Amino acid sequence: MEKNFDFVIQMQVRDYECDLEGIVNNANYLHYLEHTRHEYIKQKGLSFARLHEEGIDLVVARINIAYKTPLRSDDEFISGINITKEGMKYVFHHEIYRVGDEKLCIRAKVESVSIVNGKLADYPPLEALLKN
Amino acid sequence: MEKNFDFVIQMQVRDYECDLEGIVNNANYLHYLEHTRHEYIKQKGLSFARLHEEGIDLVVARINIAYKTPLRSDDEFISGINITKEGMKYVFHHEIYRVGDEKLCIRAKVESVSIVNGKLADYPPLEALLKN
Amino acid sequence: MEKNFDFVIQMQVRDYECDLEGIVNNANYLHYLEHTRHEYIKQKGLSFARLHEEGIDLVVARINIAYKTPLRSDDEFISGINITKEGMKYVFHHEIYRVGDEKLCIRAKVESVSIVNGKLADYPPLEALLKN
Amino acid sequence: MEKNFDFVIQMQVRDYECDLEGIVNNANYLHYLEHTRHEYIKQKGLSFARLHEEGIDLVVARINIAYKTPLRSDDEFISGINITKEGMKYVFHHEIYRVGDEKLCIRAKVESVSIVNGKLADYPPLEALLKN
Repeated sequence: MEKNFDFVIQMQVRDYECDLEGIVNNANYLHYLEHTRHEYIKQKGLSFARLHEEGIDLVVARINIAYKTPLRSDDEFISGINITKEGMKYVFHHEIYRVGDEKLCIRAKVESVSIVNGKLADYPPLEALLKN
Repeated sequence: MEKNFDFVIQMQVRDYECDLEGIVNNANYLHYLEHTRHEYIKQKGLSFARLHEEGIDLVVARINIAYKTPLRSDDEFISGINITKEGMKYVFHHEIYRVGDEKLCIRAKVESVSIVNGKLADYPPLEALLKN
Repeated sequence: MEKNFDFVIQMQVRDYECDLEGIVNNANYLHYLEHTRHEYIKQKGLSFARLHEEGIDLVVARINIAYKTPLRSDDEFISGINITKEGMKYVFHHEIYRVGDEKLCIRAKVESVSIVNGKLADYPPLEALLKN
Repeated sequence: MEKNFDFVIQMQVRDYECDLEGIVNNANYLHYLEHTRHEYIKQKGLSFARLHEEGIDLVVARINIAYKTPLRSDDEFISGINITKEGMKYVFHHEIYRVGDEKLCIRAKVESVSIVNGKLADYPPLEALLKN
């Protein structure tokens, strides 16, 4: 894969994430995406849980996700993101590729806003997410 | 609520669906939406699980969801859908409203296709979903 | 069913709770049980989430669950509990029966303790759980 | 940790696995345990999903789990198992330890049986699970 991502992690399907169709249930991809974002935040020296304790919540405002190739039991995958800022929104451009045949599994755009003490507001330390 | 839906169910938040921010985790709304669709399918005399056994899978191709007001522990909500067909896609227009203050919690557009014996194909009995 | 329970709710299987074996995944029964306990607590005028905000957590210390008949897509079920107190533990005796053939699906014993401001302690209002 | 396990994997808490108490929800430990078992099965050259397709299901019959120390956001943990056979049951003795302070998080005994074409039966290739 020659894709350029700001951040990448490798994960594998866990069987309980598959539904009776034998494929990963559509909701579980949002879990994969959230986990990728939180790992990226952690790599930048921040922590989603600690931020929450300090009154700062990164809240998802919109998700647009296209399902391309379903992941199945035993599949491993690469979850990559690029991040941009549009006004007060942090926009995470996600892609998941299956390891092996490098097929695109999902492509998603996740828009998040920061809520500081209950109000929509900028939280400058999050700007670290924008720097490589 | 004076909204007109093809189908409506009432549900309530279960505490395990809330995450450490105390609000329903973004992925769980996709569970609510899927359950609403499957209940609607059941009301039309079809069953998602039985269709799967006969080789017909209704597969989600794209979801566009806007998160408006977060649901919390003890909240009850109304989940409604309208259905249209665009080409071979069944498009489910979802809205979730909180019971009590009638606030819009999420609005989502879910595009599904039918896969018959592994191939994208129309499955005529599903047309029942389009009739009131 | 002539069983005597302190509290009973009726629920139905949601398809996303089934795994690739086509049966409800073993972990999801713990969700059903937790939801039953929290509904019972609510009926007694308490709320798990509000208790948490006041520094009182009902924490599960041990679960012993026997899986008897698997629930499947489209199944409805009765989830009942009886409650006893053993020392500082609240013990929830759970059973789940399938609606229709009344088959026992699971039987479980769940031991909970109350943690008050971070310490194991009795929280007298919870005694309401013991009274019919 | 000087514990001797037949199999060990390291995992980390994902934030969506935590509930409104800020700790991993009790049901999610069963997911950790199942994933550990399925990884062990895979290491032995078998696959839970492929076995299912061939008509062989490893089904959980009983779980006895003691919750000792709650895992939280950002925690990493070691999940280890030892396996014994008692009659037709495969018994998985699980322990999860937190990385760092090596605290025991949960101890569990999971009893599984093999169902071959719908009937309780021995499936000899599974004996590989008993050999180191």
